[in-house]
Amino acid sequence: MKSLQENKFWNEKLNNLSPYIPGEQPDPDDEIIKLNTNENPYPPTDSIVDLLEDIDIMRLALYPQSDWSELRQVLSQTYSIPADQIFCGNGSDEILTLIFRSFFNPGDVVLLPYPNYSLYETLAQSNDVQFEYVQSGDNFEINLNELLNRPSKAVFFSNPNAPTGKLYTLDVIKDFCSKYDGLFILDEAYIDFASENAGKELSGITLLNELDNLIVVRTFSKSFSLAGIRSGYAFSSKGLIEGLMRMKDSYNLDYISQQISIKALEDYDIMLENAERIIENRQFLSDELFHLGFDLLNSKANFLFTKHKNHSGEDLVKKLKEKKIFVRHFKQERLNEYIRITIGQREDMETLIDKLKEII
Amino acid sequence: MKSLQENKFWNEKLNNLSPYIPGEQPDPDDEIIKLNTNENPYPPTDSIVDLLEDIDIMRLALYPQSDWSELRQVLSQTYSIPADQIFCGNGSDEILTLIFRSFFNPGDVVLLPYPNYSLYETLAQSNDVQFEYVQSGDNFEINLNELLNRPSKAVFFSNPNAPTGKLYTLDVIKDFCSKYDGLFILDEAYIDFASENAGKELSGITLLNELDNLIVVRTFSKSFSLAGIRSGYAFSSKGLIEGLMRMKDSYNLDYISQQISIKALEDYDIMLENAERIIENRQFLSDELFHLGFDLLNSKANFLFTKHKNHSGEDLVKKLKEKKIFVRHFKQERLNEYIRITIGQREDMETLIDKLKEII
Repeated sequence: MKSLQENKFWNEKLNNLSPYIPGEQPDPDDEIIKLNTNENPYPPTDSIVDLLEDIDIMRLALYPQSDWSELRQVLSQTYSIPADQIFCGNGSDEILTLIFRSFFNPGDVVLLPYPNYSLYETLAQSNDVQFEYVQSGDNFEINLNELLNRPSKAVFFSNPNAPTGKLYTLDVIKDFCSKYDGLFILDEAYIDFASENAGKELSGITLLNELDNLIVVRTFSKSFSLAGIRSGYAFSSKGLIEGLMRMKDSYNLDYISQQISIKALEDYDIMLENAERIIENRQFLSDELFHLGFDLLNSKANFLFTKHKNHSGEDLVKKLKEKKIFVRHFKQERLNEYIRITIGQREDMETLIDKLKEII
Repeated sequence: MKSLQENKFWNEKLNNLSPYIPGEQPDPDDEIIKLNTNENPYPPTDSIVDLLEDIDIMRLALYPQSDWSELRQVLSQTYSIPADQIFCGNGSDEILTLIFRSFFNPGDVVLLPYPNYSLYETLAQSNDVQFEYVQSGDNFEINLNELLNRPSKAVFFSNPNAPTGKLYTLDVIKDFCSKYDGLFILDEAYIDFASENAGKELSGITLLNELDNLIVVRTFSKSFSLAGIRSGYAFSSKGLIEGLMRMKDSYNLDYISQQISIKALEDYDIMLENAERIIENRQFLSDELFHLGFDLLNSKANFLFTKHKNHSGEDLVKKLKEKKIFVRHFKQERLNEYIRITIGQREDMETLIDKLKEII
């Protein structure tokens, strides 16, 4: 046997990469209240059960549609965007990865308002792109002037922000994009929880006619309760969508996930109802946490980012875990005092409050 | 509206990229005999129907296993390879893409025996890696000496070869790899059709103990009749698998595809039976084509690569299409005289022969 170093074949990017660390996934059989990865506590629509029962198994032997034309058509109708301005991916993760692979050259600089979804940093590293964080103010307000004035190729902007849940209005985003020469990636993973109308009047989708440096990224994982099927979508100008099409693997989204995504969109009203329940539960949990002495940001997402005056984030996560409740803790600067709690069903929120009362 | 060029944001790699062109996918409702993309004519195992009926829909709201631990365990048992030497991907396409992203630096040279699966060329371009074809001899024998002597970082080797179907023995591969310093990517998409024992004694899997510059890439798309679910897998040394794990998106394979893949492996014997039927149909079609004046290579895959003395490949493809039979034609040098015919069910092979008799 030839003796090779294990990493002899790794390239520079890989050697320098700090992998993205997803939230812990407990065994589904354990009796855990899982509030750590922003999954939806309500089931996806029942029509998906029927779909799975009716799938023609012979269809699985064939390749899926390479351009997801059926799903794209339904997305086009649902959001009133032409099909050639729509992209579909193996989760929004794949779409974000393809944005890095398609639009940046080595050494380009992308700006990340801090704090932010940490995957952007990982993807910058794994694609040999420089990233610079732009610090936010005391209450995590994003410094838009600095974002605009620092030379850059792109800005990655989660709205509502991950992990703070803060929402920026469309006016602010429109004003920024119209002055900015680079690409603006607007990650709307959580926008459906921003208002009782699924954030319709708050979404960057309405700006697509006016801006062609805008990519709006969406997912079926959160509001549609479908993290398990890995299906994401994006809206942008024709030229940018065509670029992503050219870079992607031929058959990047499997047949069943395409079909399930279609059903989910057809039952859009059920998604709306579930999002409304989550908004109610969020209000309930906010009020209760406030009474327990927690400091709260005004989250418009399906999670709260919060800290307690007397208990460190690390301590709370550990003690809740002992009581079989998982919440998320981030070790990074300025975030480590906080915990991020996914909004669950009402009774899970009540259990959480009871356990927190025992701890505090 | 700001006036931007459509391609202003495309990077150099994207601008230089000639996209991989997959075979045409007709509307499934059209009465086409589809012999152009090497799909399996036999259905996947019935237990997948039961699986789909029994899926707990609430499970779809949760992220899938990031390390596919359940599927990996079943692959480990099926192929007697330790789990930490196994990788799973969104089709073998994703695994090949990740190999390019993880192990090569810009400007590295990879060698491609010609002819070969043309996706390798596309992936080299989209990852800023140089590729060089190494011409084969008159009967498409690969020039192994030249592969060994030209400086390179890796060799991509499909075995059986796409599109010729030619098979190289394990001795040849072992000898090559032990002398070669770079990575050897052995794409065994079609190996299950190489013998009646699913190519077991012919697979590079048996070399993994001795070589750590070897990556064996496999897929559920062909022999397992599951092109629709996008599930591929690979075996290699621990260090190379760890590298791919680090580069991949966190949740790269969806829950349902993981579960279906497990069922397919549990019904391994059904795959074997289907592969045997395809081998029989291949023999039948070879004999018939020979009598019609076709020149045949000794294909060990689920397709035949063949040319006729009096009819060009382009002409045959066109005339068969008029008769509602799709076969594949490649425009590249040396390949354009040929057609590639996927092995279908016996009756489809008989229809094909009838139609060819009308044409010739």
